[in-house]
Amino acid sequence: MSVTTAKGFSAAGVVAGLKSSGKRDLALVQNRGPLTAAAAVFTTNRCKANPVLWSEQVIADGVVSAIVLNSGGANCYTGAQGFQTTHATAEAVGEALGVSAGDVLVCSTGLIGDQLDVDKLTAGVAQAATALAGDSGLGAAEAIMTTDTKPKQAEQVSPAGWAVGGMAKGAGMLAPGLATMLVVITTDAVLDSTQLDTALRAATRVTFDRLDSDGCMSTNDTVALLGSGASGVTPDLAEFTLALTEVCRSLAKQLQEDAEGASHDVTIEVVNARTEDDAVTVGRAVSRSNLFKAAIFGNDPNWGRVLAAVGTTDAEFDPYGIDVAINGVQVCTAGEPDQPRDLVDLTPRAVHVLIDLHAGDETAAILTNDLTHDYVHENSAYSS
Amino acid sequence: MSVTTAKGFSAAGVVAGLKSSGKRDLALVQNRGPLTAAAAVFTTNRCKANPVLWSEQVIADGVVSAIVLNSGGANCYTGAQGFQTTHATAEAVGEALGVSAGDVLVCSTGLIGDQLDVDKLTAGVAQAATALAGDSGLGAAEAIMTTDTKPKQAEQVSPAGWAVGGMAKGAGMLAPGLATMLVVITTDAVLDSTQLDTALRAATRVTFDRLDSDGCMSTNDTVALLGSGASGVTPDLAEFTLALTEVCRSLAKQLQEDAEGASHDVTIEVVNARTEDDAVTVGRAVSRSNLFKAAIFGNDPNWGRVLAAVGTTDAEFDPYGIDVAINGVQVCTAGEPDQPRDLVDLTPRAVHVLIDLHAGDETAAILTNDLTHDYVHENSAYSS
Repeated sequence: MSVTTAKGFSAAGVVAGLKSSGKRDLALVQNRGPLTAAAAVFTTNRCKANPVLWSEQVIADGVVSAIVLNSGGANCYTGAQGFQTTHATAEAVGEALGVSAGDVLVCSTGLIGDQLDVDKLTAGVAQAATALAGDSGLGAAEAIMTTDTKPKQAEQVSPAGWAVGGMAKGAGMLAPGLATMLVVITTDAVLDSTQLDTALRAATRVTFDRLDSDGCMSTNDTVALLGSGASGVTPDLAEFTLALTEVCRSLAKQLQEDAEGASHDVTIEVVNARTEDDAVTVGRAVSRSNLFKAAIFGNDPNWGRVLAAVGTTDAEFDPYGIDVAINGVQVCTAGEPDQPRDLVDLTPRAVHVLIDLHAGDETAAILTNDLTHDYVHENSAYSS
Repeated sequence: MSVTTAKGFSAAGVVAGLKSSGKRDLALVQNRGPLTAAAAVFTTNRCKANPVLWSEQVIADGVVSAIVLNSGGANCYTGAQGFQTTHATAEAVGEALGVSAGDVLVCSTGLIGDQLDVDKLTAGVAQAATALAGDSGLGAAEAIMTTDTKPKQAEQVSPAGWAVGGMAKGAGMLAPGLATMLVVITTDAVLDSTQLDTALRAATRVTFDRLDSDGCMSTNDTVALLGSGASGVTPDLAEFTLALTEVCRSLAKQLQEDAEGASHDVTIEVVNARTEDDAVTVGRAVSRSNLFKAAIFGNDPNWGRVLAAVGTTDAEFDPYGIDVAINGVQVCTAGEPDQPRDLVDLTPRAVHVLIDLHAGDETAAILTNDLTHDYVHENSAYSS
């Protein structure tokens, strides 16, 4: 049920002392092989954190021996000193595990603009290296939590003998390209880094990239996929991609369900769009409407705010040919009120908004949350 | 100090019974001439309300005799019946004032998706027509309020003998192209509709279009400029545009200061951009970051959230060559921490964020607000 589900991987989560809470804050995952194939996708934010700048170089050759992740600080906008800290962390992992620092991915999460304590980090790495075990996936998943209320793990085990498992952290700043999240997925299937990359991009495109909790894009997002080949089984790539997508979907759903302060998990399903991009654009516009999201928090099926958001996009549709249903009640048909809004029950946590553009036959669903007092509270007090 | 500052205009604000509160909810402004020149700009939302669809036709010939505005309902996504309601409202004004219904602008504001009571509207129009007076600007300004806590008015009087005055409503859904607002501005300067249009577009581009309280775009926005020519004075167009811009700037500032639930008025000034568009894009991205806005609410100078938002844009800059100052404290220089964030005092309501892109010499300022508990509260209970 974790990064240690697949054969060939060890993990550890330890207390490095980066978090003032004294909780676990450093995770290490080692790929013991025989393969050390890997792929990764990163935030599309142009303001990238030092560990992302580092890891983009590491992944270039498709070889990764280990990944180290810390909470307690993002190491972003920390200048040359911050980059040295990332480098020193990778060196410490390399030394402890007898691998090249250039094959070590580094991820950080926490406040932007503060320096990490490099001594605590490297001591934590040494401690984690001695704690590595084949059953410590949960400890690693706990060590990457920030405002997450629970660790997030998922797995798929193929009857053919290979497995995919992963862990994720992320509770706010969840937005496309990617969300604010760190995700490590491991597999023991026999695949090279090009195959892993193809599968990972296909899987993230329809899962993590469709999660948009609060419209804010992180500087540190990383989703890494490590392949040990330890099962000895070469899977059909399509079948592997399907399993990987399921793991990503489960983790994305767990991220949505644990989004900061949220009281509703909202799925915005856009159907009959001319293109899939149109469907995504429309879904995302609605998912970013603070007015719509505040209304959902108030259990108010204010469908006018859905249409006001749809109208800001350049997707193909006739503004007066759109249907909207909320939780199964058809509140708007062809731009006119249909069923009374009072029929909509928004008391359940899960909310389903269905937008029919009547412009084609493409579909996409965006996962988002409502805008709540607790969201404002958590995010107004983060760095203090 | 209002739409009746300029000569040739009468106004009224009456209780038509559209608002359950029993407050004034219908405003009428008549241009008594001699000129009936006019210009108007409307929301760029593709989901336009019925009064916008109507008024876009009315303004086409540059002739407007009167404008009628109601709160208590947006008349948007109300289908053919809703359009008939708008039409009937204009007809009622035409009949009461002895003008063509085709020269009557109509504006509505309130909940989307509910039908307006056409009988109350037309009775209100008749009542307003008899109440029209040269000193009733304030009553009209009060009648267009929705969640506004105060009426919004502004004026500029030229020593040359002409004047510009206006009123605005809008407290939420303040976003570009334009904000959720209805604005009526009157002038007695002698200008034709083409000149009024040129001046109005120049003025709104740098005022209302730079106000982005919550990133949400309305379906009903209208800014109308009516010219009576009653001063007999033909102004220099540049001078007139300057005065008009000042009126728009004052009204925009009043909208910002009365934004729903806001506890801070935030000016995001972007300097040394390669183009003005770049500066606007960057300012707007920051103004739409819920994380940044929640931090400001918490008096937390979390400048990392500024840079994370800047990094989502395609403006020209070196991500590690950006400086950020908050309320005069240089918290980030060239992508590294500079002055301690603790030095920033965010207790005053006015907040100034200065972002230096070091990429050119263009500048723009976006006006926004913080994201507060009260914003969530007001917008989670609007339609109930």
